[in-house]
Order: sequence, then structure tokens, then C-alpha cells
Amino acid sequence: EIVAAIEALLNPKDQPLAGKRIVMTSGPTHEPIDPVRYIANRSSGKQGHALAAALAALGADVHLVSGPVTIPDPAGVTTYHVETAREMLAQVEGLLPADAGIFVAAVADWRTDNEASQKMKKEKGKPVPSLSLVENPDILATIGHHAQRPGLVVGFAAETNDVIDNAKGKLVRKGADMIVANDVSHGSGIGPSGVMGGDRNRVHLVSADGVESLDEASKDEIARQLAAKIAEALTR
Amino acid sequence: EIVAAIEALLNPKDQPLAGKRIVMTSGPTHEPIDPVRYIANRSSGKQGHALAAALAALGADVHLVSGPVTIPDPAGVTTYHVETAREMLAQVEGLLPADAGIFVAAVADWRTDNEASQKMKKEKGKPVPSLSLVENPDILATIGHHAQRPGLVVGFAAETNDVIDNAKGKLVRKGADMIVANDVSHGSGIGPSGVMGGDRNRVHLVSADGVESLDEASKDEIARQLAAKIAEALTR
Repeated sequence: EIVAAIEALLNPKDQPLAGKRIVMTSGPTHEPIDPVRYIANRSSGKQGHALAAALAALGADVHLVSGPVTIPDPAGVTTYHVETAREMLAQVEGLLPADAGIFVAAVADWRTDNEASQKMKKEKGKPVPSLSLVENPDILATIGHHAQRPGLVVGFAAETNDVIDNAKGKLVRKGADMIVANDVSHGSGIGPSGVMGGDRNRVHLVSADGVESLDEASKDEIARQLAAKIAEALTR
Repeated sequence: EIVAAIEALLNPKDQPLAGKRIVMTSGPTHEPIDPVRYIANRSSGKQGHALAAALAALGADVHLVSGPVTIPDPAGVTTYHVETAREMLAQVEGLLPADAGIFVAAVADWRTDNEASQKMKKEKGKPVPSLSLVENPDILATIGHHAQRPGLVVGFAAETNDVIDNAKGKLVRKGADMIVANDVSHGSGIGPSGVMGGDRNRVHLVSADGVESLDEASKDEIARQLAAKIAEALTR
């Protein structure tokens, strides 16, 4: 590692992102219903954490805001742990300004508007409660239209249908420069159990320039390719 | 391990549960809302998995039905992996008859009655969806009143208030011989982050004989003490 670090210092072309501050999110958010229950999104954090490590390896100063995951903090990255969408947004805003904002987390779109302070009890003869939901802040759209908007804003979109069309719509609505879209449906044909929780991915890069589809690969390899694209965008 | 196994065979008093078949549950359940979202209970599975291992160490033939957890299957235990409450109940019923049924899992009381096959989209101008819930099967009560009810039925109850009173009510309603109750509130004073996800626990054993409170201890130590109590109940 020390040798690699010295080599990198002597070889600035291996560290194209040296001096660049990148704020990222990864993992799911958990939105509490009561002290023992929550609503969650399926997200292992593998793709986001791999991308954070790949950007750090190119010399970036990476600040990663992670929801609840069971994988370790990535090497060479400053990691902040949060649980809910509101905590995630507050942490991200606190880390601005930055050269790039990259939003991989699967943020819950909704939370309950009436979190119970005691465990909700099931009672005979009482009707089953219904969960009334309110919209969570949209972190990508908030930063995409922020007074301190980073020069490069990249969002991730997990879709189960109309992957490219949904991503094109998000590019505009959310004020992003690029949407990295993937198909997380069971029918995506990726890995034995699909993209979510698995180690492989296939992504489409949607930007004002058009759509570029990367070949299916490991999440680490996808991370390296995305990091190279981001370095290109940040240094041209 | 081989030496221990031989010693155990030569020393039947170390294997009081030899020949006893025990069906258990552990971990949370995940109830899907759509392909990427779910409702979950907070449960690491640590206490249930530790108890399964402790019962196996006493010679029992342990069949553990586990919800989604990130800890390894316990040694010496046959483990089955499920996601939802309905899958958990079906697996448990398929494992009957048994000498004891021990239900540690934090089963979701409710699931949505309208799981979406495509990812639900947030749309401008459209109202936020509300989740209509239906009651899940109550695994403990189902087995406590089952035609093939095991001779010993033990339930676990995570409470945030009125811990003992809630447990006494469950003992009767659910047809259990014992409820192992614990206080999972943030104010329980256990560990830096409370019982859930942590490594320590304090439990109260509620049965027709009364209430016995065990001292706060590691989840492994609590598991050994509970396994000894269960062995006593199954062999007297």
C-alpha cells in the first residue's frame, strides 16, 4: 500500500482526481414505523461502496454517507452512518460544497407521517392500522437544484420496467448530469438472484449526450469503469 | 470437537436433550411492498441463533427457521431460510411434529394486502400512496393451538412498555407454556445501543409458575441459561 501510494504521488496520471472533493450516498434508508418496525428499500450498498473505493483509488477526497448496510466502510473513504432519508440529506448538505455529488443510495420515497413512540399492538376486535405515508425529501433532486450544486451531479436509478425512459425523465426532473440506470427486476437475467444483494450488475449511462450501455460485469468492475467516466467528466 | 463429541456420548448427562426434536424460529421477517421495498422488524437473529446453538450443544436435534439475517447459520443446527411470515409458518408446520417449539423470530404482525409487481413510482400531482395492511398469521398462537402442538411451546416477546403484563397476556392468548420477555426500548439501559442488534440482553421468564428474571448478560450466556431451563422442562 505504501509503495502504491508513493508510486501514485510520483505518477499524477494515476491520480486524476487528486484534490477533487466528492460527496456520495450508498445503501438503503430505513424509515421507522415504531420502535421495532421500519420500511426499507432493498440495497446492499455494494455498488455504491465499490464506487466510493474506486474514486478514492483515483485520488479523490471521498465523503460517503451510508444508510444501514452490513458491509465494511470502504478503504480510503470518509464514511458517515445515517438511517433515514432526512438524516441522509442533512449529512449531504453539511458536506457541501463539493466538486461532484454522486447519489447511489436507494432512498425510501416515503415515510410514515405518524411514527409511534411505543410498539404498535395487535388487538382483537380492533381494525388493522393503515400506514399513512408522506413523501421523503428527494436527495438527488434537492442537490441537483441546490444553491451549492456541485459541478457534476450523478444519480442512480433502480428500475423494474422502462429502464431507459424512466432514467431520461429523471435526468431532467432531478437536475442531474448523468443517471446510471439498472434493471433490478427478477427477470433481468443477472446473477442467480438478480442485481440486488448480488455481486454483478449491468448499467446504462443516460446523459444529455445519449445512452451508453456498459457490459454486464462485477460491481467492482462497473465501479472502476464509472470512476474513470467520472474522472473524465471532472477533468475535461 | 471430535473429542467433545465422544465425551458427550460417554457422558449422557451432558446431552440431556439427545433424541429431542426442537423446531425454532429466529430473525425478522420481511414483508414486500413492491419489488424494491419491504416492511421489516428490527431483529439481528443473535439471541435466537445463540439459543439454537446452545440447545444443539445439549444434544437436541434443532431445526431453525430463520428470516433474513446477516449472521452465519449456527453450528450443529439444520437451518431453513425464509423471508415472509407466511413462508415461516409454512416451514414450521412442515417440520412438525416436534418435542418443543421455540419462537424467537420478530415476525411482522402485518403485511400489505396489495403487493405491487412493479416498483411504485412517485408522480407529481398524484397523491402519496397509503399502505393498506392485513394481519399476518400469528406463528406462536397457531402452533400453541395446533393439532400437532409440541409438548413444550415457548414464545419470545419484545416489548417497549408494560413488559411483564404484556407477556402474561400473551402466555394465555397464544397457548404458550412460557414467554421470554425483554425490554427493547431505548431506555432499557442495556448496552450502548439497546438490546436490538446489540450483544447483551435481560429477559424475564413468564409462565404459569410466575415470573423469573435473569440477570443482564451476553446473548450467548442468556442462551445457555434458557437452554438449561428448556432441558429441565423437557426431561422432567
